[in-house]
Amino acid sequence: MLLIKNGTVVTAADFHRADVLIEGEHIKAIGHDLSAPGAEVIDARGQFVLPGGIDPHVHLDMPFMGTSSSDNYETGTLAALHGGTTTVIDFVLQTQGKSLRHALEAWQGRMNGNLYGDLSFHMAVTDFNDGTRKEVKEMIEQEGITSFKTFMAYKGALMIDDRQMVGLMQEVKQHGGMVIVHATNGDMIDYLVQKHRSEGKLSPLYHYLSQPEITEAEASHRFADMASYTGVPAYIVHLTCEGALNAVRDAARRGQRVLAETCIQYLLLDASLYEREDGAKWVMSPPLREKKDQTQLWAGIEQGSLQVVATDHCPFTWEKKLLGKDDFSKIPNGHPAIEHRMELLFSEGVNKKRISVNKFVEVTATNPAKIFGMFPKKGTIGIGSDADIILLDPNEKHTLSAKTHHMNVDYSSYEGRELTGKVKTTILRGQVAVHNGEVRIKKGYGKFVKRNKVSGML
Amino acid sequence: MLLIKNGTVVTAADFHRADVLIEGEHIKAIGHDLSAPGAEVIDARGQFVLPGGIDPHVHLDMPFMGTSSSDNYETGTLAALHGGTTTVIDFVLQTQGKSLRHALEAWQGRMNGNLYGDLSFHMAVTDFNDGTRKEVKEMIEQEGITSFKTFMAYKGALMIDDRQMVGLMQEVKQHGGMVIVHATNGDMIDYLVQKHRSEGKLSPLYHYLSQPEITEAEASHRFADMASYTGVPAYIVHLTCEGALNAVRDAARRGQRVLAETCIQYLLLDASLYEREDGAKWVMSPPLREKKDQTQLWAGIEQGSLQVVATDHCPFTWEKKLLGKDDFSKIPNGHPAIEHRMELLFSEGVNKKRISVNKFVEVTATNPAKIFGMFPKKGTIGIGSDADIILLDPNEKHTLSAKTHHMNVDYSSYEGRELTGKVKTTILRGQVAVHNGEVRIKKGYGKFVKRNKVSGML
Amino acid sequence: MLLIKNGTVVTAADFHRADVLIEGEHIKAIGHDLSAPGAEVIDARGQFVLPGGIDPHVHLDMPFMGTSSSDNYETGTLAALHGGTTTVIDFVLQTQGKSLRHALEAWQGRMNGNLYGDLSFHMAVTDFNDGTRKEVKEMIEQEGITSFKTFMAYKGALMIDDRQMVGLMQEVKQHGGMVIVHATNGDMIDYLVQKHRSEGKLSPLYHYLSQPEITEAEASHRFADMASYTGVPAYIVHLTCEGALNAVRDAARRGQRVLAETCIQYLLLDASLYEREDGAKWVMSPPLREKKDQTQLWAGIEQGSLQVVATDHCPFTWEKKLLGKDDFSKIPNGHPAIEHRMELLFSEGVNKKRISVNKFVEVTATNPAKIFGMFPKKGTIGIGSDADIILLDPNEKHTLSAKTHHMNVDYSSYEGRELTGKVKTTILRGQVAVHNGEVRIKKGYGKFVKRNKVSGML
Amino acid sequence: MLLIKNGTVVTAADFHRADVLIEGEHIKAIGHDLSAPGAEVIDARGQFVLPGGIDPHVHLDMPFMGTSSSDNYETGTLAALHGGTTTVIDFVLQTQGKSLRHALEAWQGRMNGNLYGDLSFHMAVTDFNDGTRKEVKEMIEQEGITSFKTFMAYKGALMIDDRQMVGLMQEVKQHGGMVIVHATNGDMIDYLVQKHRSEGKLSPLYHYLSQPEITEAEASHRFADMASYTGVPAYIVHLTCEGALNAVRDAARRGQRVLAETCIQYLLLDASLYEREDGAKWVMSPPLREKKDQTQLWAGIEQGSLQVVATDHCPFTWEKKLLGKDDFSKIPNGHPAIEHRMELLFSEGVNKKRISVNKFVEVTATNPAKIFGMFPKKGTIGIGSDADIILLDPNEKHTLSAKTHHMNVDYSSYEGRELTGKVKTTILRGQVAVHNGEVRIKKGYGKFVKRNKVSGML
Repeated sequence: MLLIKNGTVVTAADFHRADVLIEGEHIKAIGHDLSAPGAEVIDARGQFVLPGGIDPHVHLDMPFMGTSSSDNYETGTLAALHGGTTTVIDFVLQTQGKSLRHALEAWQGRMNGNLYGDLSFHMAVTDFNDGTRKEVKEMIEQEGITSFKTFMAYKGALMIDDRQMVGLMQEVKQHGGMVIVHATNGDMIDYLVQKHRSEGKLSPLYHYLSQPEITEAEASHRFADMASYTGVPAYIVHLTCEGALNAVRDAARRGQRVLAETCIQYLLLDASLYEREDGAKWVMSPPLREKKDQTQLWAGIEQGSLQVVATDHCPFTWEKKLLGKDDFSKIPNGHPAIEHRMELLFSEGVNKKRISVNKFVEVTATNPAKIFGMFPKKGTIGIGSDADIILLDPNEKHTLSAKTHHMNVDYSSYEGRELTGKVKTTILRGQVAVHNGEVRIKKGYGKFVKRNKVSGML
Repeated sequence: MLLIKNGTVVTAADFHRADVLIEGEHIKAIGHDLSAPGAEVIDARGQFVLPGGIDPHVHLDMPFMGTSSSDNYETGTLAALHGGTTTVIDFVLQTQGKSLRHALEAWQGRMNGNLYGDLSFHMAVTDFNDGTRKEVKEMIEQEGITSFKTFMAYKGALMIDDRQMVGLMQEVKQHGGMVIVHATNGDMIDYLVQKHRSEGKLSPLYHYLSQPEITEAEASHRFADMASYTGVPAYIVHLTCEGALNAVRDAARRGQRVLAETCIQYLLLDASLYEREDGAKWVMSPPLREKKDQTQLWAGIEQGSLQVVATDHCPFTWEKKLLGKDDFSKIPNGHPAIEHRMELLFSEGVNKKRISVNKFVEVTATNPAKIFGMFPKKGTIGIGSDADIILLDPNEKHTLSAKTHHMNVDYSSYEGRELTGKVKTTILRGQVAVHNGEVRIKKGYGKFVKRNKVSGML
Repeated sequence: MLLIKNGTVVTAADFHRADVLIEGEHIKAIGHDLSAPGAEVIDARGQFVLPGGIDPHVHLDMPFMGTSSSDNYETGTLAALHGGTTTVIDFVLQTQGKSLRHALEAWQGRMNGNLYGDLSFHMAVTDFNDGTRKEVKEMIEQEGITSFKTFMAYKGALMIDDRQMVGLMQEVKQHGGMVIVHATNGDMIDYLVQKHRSEGKLSPLYHYLSQPEITEAEASHRFADMASYTGVPAYIVHLTCEGALNAVRDAARRGQRVLAETCIQYLLLDASLYEREDGAKWVMSPPLREKKDQTQLWAGIEQGSLQVVATDHCPFTWEKKLLGKDDFSKIPNGHPAIEHRMELLFSEGVNKKRISVNKFVEVTATNPAKIFGMFPKKGTIGIGSDADIILLDPNEKHTLSAKTHHMNVDYSSYEGRELTGKVKTTILRGQVAVHNGEVRIKKGYGKFVKRNKVSGML
Repeated sequence: MLLIKNGTVVTAADFHRADVLIEGEHIKAIGHDLSAPGAEVIDARGQFVLPGGIDPHVHLDMPFMGTSSSDNYETGTLAALHGGTTTVIDFVLQTQGKSLRHALEAWQGRMNGNLYGDLSFHMAVTDFNDGTRKEVKEMIEQEGITSFKTFMAYKGALMIDDRQMVGLMQEVKQHGGMVIVHATNGDMIDYLVQKHRSEGKLSPLYHYLSQPEITEAEASHRFADMASYTGVPAYIVHLTCEGALNAVRDAARRGQRVLAETCIQYLLLDASLYEREDGAKWVMSPPLREKKDQTQLWAGIEQGSLQVVATDHCPFTWEKKLLGKDDFSKIPNGHPAIEHRMELLFSEGVNKKRISVNKFVEVTATNPAKIFGMFPKKGTIGIGSDADIILLDPNEKHTLSAKTHHMNVDYSSYEGRELTGKVKTTILRGQVAVHNGEVRIKKGYGKFVKRNKVSGML
């Protein structure tokens, strides 16, 4: 038994001074003056006691562009725990021409036995045909994989066309799943990439200029239209810009709710970084945007139009990034973020009074759990829920750096940035996993999480 | 001490099987297998344990149109408790030409000593001038009245013009309050009322036709514009229609959040009732709207654009309604609703799967508390919060009728409607107030609630 | 020389009682009391003297779905003349895998020597690649074909993807042309067609239900987005519905002008016809829509958001239509309309006071000429312009019927409809072509019109 | 008889090389090689022959803010003729408490016998009551004053409230007139003016900051809503900004057409001028806006959402402007513009390829004539129309300056600006009024124009 005393317990709804009692893997009680003979006691005075973060958008050990993302299941989930994220959702990517099952087995092979933190899978459907149609139900009901990722970009590799999209949506809806999407117009982007390359425009800035806002706004509108027609629960990943947010708002006008996630970097960083010599560090898709987009994304969170803040964690070492030093299109897409989402959002969001601490919990934990079918097991500090809890000191200052972070990558996207608010203790299913930087669990402690059917309602 | 065992405890965020322990007026613990020697035990098996409802829009014992609303502070707050609403916010109405203090004292005179349930006041500013400007700070800081109601209708009686509105907004913002509004274009409505009367169009239907959707859409846009310019926290009361909801959505597009409440009747009833012989029963302002508006309001709740479901309870007996039998403009505006908001929304919303039970708690209790500065004292089942709790049997069927309701009015707006889901027990500050229809507290138990400053952020 | 006396001469701007003097093929003077010794005089008292209609959307002798449209260049242009349309623009359709030139030659082969009325070509690019890229300039500069049609539907046959679209747009813009589009989401439609077929839903109604409004709204938005990015002059053909019109309006909000055409049938007929036994008569793509769409289309014309009313004339005999009697997807798409656009729009638009007679001229003649690079040669009654003129009696009543029409098809889409306003005389390049139903020119009189570069500005 | 040879004749629709023959006051013929024995011949080779400009928004000899606008009917209409404007519409302003007739007579008194150019009146209704209601019909049918101006600003002086507005709209609609509006929220502006003054913010910049964009956007939306409800033909004068243009666009979405005018200064000048020491020169209401607004206004013209470019000419000498040197609210509002609208728009619009020359004619002459019931008498070069014609050399360069202009005011808003395109000859009703700067008519030549009923349709 574990007893957390005197902290300020926060959920998506509540905020109170209380003790939290944990028995085994679960939360047993919350209250004043709780006592439990024999329980290990953690003093949380002056700290926020928060649900462990859920990052529903990470790519671990993922084969991509001739290499693999540099964090594997071990280093990635451990770095997440250091930063207060107890559960992540990773993406299985179907190979076009092969089955979903085939991909799932490959991903399970890399994942099994290697987890520190808990993890679940989205299934990326890159080839929807009569074969894969049959696997949808099986994934939902047998594997607990209830969210199906689609790509409207990366033609020839990951992209499905609108015909497959509508077909997939109708199938997924029927069985209680959700369709999630990387919404950018792959055709337009392919064209612009080739155009820029043929003109000798090869620096990282052209990565940005090959994916203008309109490519994302367009695809987001289109996805919303198809979701409206089919009625499937729908979710846009890594939404970055005003144009795409307006697609969500336009859908609202006809009574539709399209769920959407942004990522921490789109709230805090902007495209001016692409003009730096080391701009490749931030080459990701979609790219960073403008200041006006940041303003709109913060507003979207407050307005409830963006429900989740994730990371799209997909790190590559600087050496790998240099594969594209002469051609932006060869830079592996992605950047490291899994470790610092919680602290960044707390420091920039809560401490700077852009969002309430309830909203912080909502977008980092409760909403991801509810949207993706893990609630109330995950995502809150509730009686009977998994005791996934972090203690965060709201006032401690610290500085982000590749020298001190735990992700397996040799640069930080936020090198030298000073934050206020630090995760001191991370508890996963009742076990102190990390405390003051010390790891107290072993590889393999993390579990795969089967998820429930979803409704798209919050 | 009071111990509620084995219920399903629901907050705006959570949902779990748990016991709730109450000590004195407050919640002490939530957990599995709680025990407390000597505590009174309530068995809540099979029931939802929910935060007591907060209805932020009621008019008790209010002088209006030559009469007074028929529920006074005694009958109104008791009827509320019967239906699971533990706290209401009533409106003090300044008399034009007199001070806010003058009105407050009159309202306190009628209220003091008469409350069963808890109650707070909004202050309606009907004459903003140099004198009232000075009272704003005093109301907020001394009286705990932090929300200022304005009328864009009822010219010559309650309406302020846009100049006063902007001045009030800037003053209220400076001191940490919120401006709330009855947003319909009073000039247009006055014109149409007179026009219809002069044409001999006098039936209740013309009440409806004198307040077309555009009068509300227009004023809602205008209010949002002024709030945007001044930056004041802003809230629209009793929003009824798609046009007004679109005003809120248009504001969102520029990054603004305008908070808004609808009322239970606008979700469930429509304007076809005005064609009935007893149409006067539903003469209220704004009037009931169309089916397409209902659809949009439900969507607005789910999308997070409408944060509150209230009642605008303002009952008049049928005799009083008949004052306008020959002229719709003489029908006292308002209808009885305070008692059944919770059960109606549960039955039509939760049980019919239009909203989740978390959303139910959010819009009936948590959001009103947060928006109006009563949180975490009120509005949730949280450690240290007031033990305002209801037990609701989600499956019990019952029928609404004037014969059985507790409001002091001789008709029901929902006569004969069968609901699924019934409030069985209402607890106010740790005391069982009503149980199975039996009242266990005395008049005077209810308290006035001073409220905190607000930010407009959730 | 030809002298038209005493008519009411109308242009897109003007309206006056005047005589019109024609010398050779051109208009020489407009004025009061004109005289010209030796001129043939036509008395136009009581008649409107209008620019000959330009129908920029017809398909003559077009191979399609295993057959050909039943009007060839001879019958089609003659029927047009009967109804007051002096110039049409027909579509050359590239065969995927072959050159634009190859298609042009095939179309020229069928067209040459067979024209009664004047005609020009749009070039439909169905396969944009390095080869066709080079032909764009040649088409514009050598062939006077300055508008390039694209299909976002008919995958595998005519459809190009967005990558080709953007590439084509940039090429066309560079050389002074315009991209025009059939904007419906071909993928979604293909999916729905197959779905309905697999479910045994085979009647004409399912043609309609396979192309819901959202498929057109979506593609119109997408096209506008791509046009905005590339800056190419852009034009949507046969826009049918509110959703697509809103795509044009949304583009306007960012300062963009997307030009758009509707067709006469979308203004006058609706989808209820698909429930008739002979619903196949109106199987066309996009399909007829709802009454609310008609209302919006009329408003769009008046507001200047729709600049052209065309026909998409593409008739098939009833025998051919019956190819799809057991499967809507086998019904040849298209219907007869070339002859009656002018009289229908005059009767329903001008005589019913939905549009002014200036607007009538604008959308039937002047705008098509300006948009497509034929102005001031065509499209107006101006000094030096081609003397393409019609005399229309605004009060004469007549009834449409397959028995009396001149199109080579055995049914009428408007069988039995009575119109007010009849074209009495059609003059083409100074020659009376048809007078009171009597044809006064010979096959071969019609000429191919080379067109100029365009700007997209009006 | 007057014969204009070899010019390029342009109307809103047409563009052709032609001669124009004038007989008496009217146009008799347009054609090639016209001859008329005894006619005076003007050689227009190399020149555009355009309809004389109509400026529907001028204030001559108007009592305002304790002084009068410095151009009276003599100097104002003569300056207009110098710049190619042959007809203006001036505003009669009702005094609150007095009749429309009373104001009309006062205005007639100042106007009669003093006109060089033609002129008509709008009637500004500042007090709509049972008395003025009766005068509406009389103004339309007897006086030929068919447009009724309303002010949503200038409370206590000119402003009417929404109740009066709706009443006026219904009355005007019934008799075939149009309601036009100065659409800014007078209450908000009054508040901001007083606030800035009380804070000692007194420079011209605060004139601008007291009328932020939202005050105009708001009132424009509100006006459109009331016009939609009443169905009256409606027109917004001097629209300046994106927000107000979006009000027009939002109205279009529901199928409504709100007509709107911008003024030449809003297209070419911006608010940075208010930071100059002589900023008072541009103090007008609404104020100049931002560059982004200019971009949107040009787009609005091209899209057909703005139909008219006027001036709101209302000049005051620098001495009068200095009345407000210590308090922006005392600066007489208005600036000189009547003379140069045509040349400015030609130079900046046509010569810089922002608009076509047809569009130039449309917005400076044809649309004002059609909208306000003067067509086809005025506004075009049509047979039988008044011979109001200008000859404009499109290539002649000249420089604007107070030293050379003909308006009765000692500064120019465009001092030193070089234009390309100069009005060389102005003909009014068949008479050369000004030629190469030489005046050939006498005071009193100008006539009052009675106007016809209007439909709001173009």
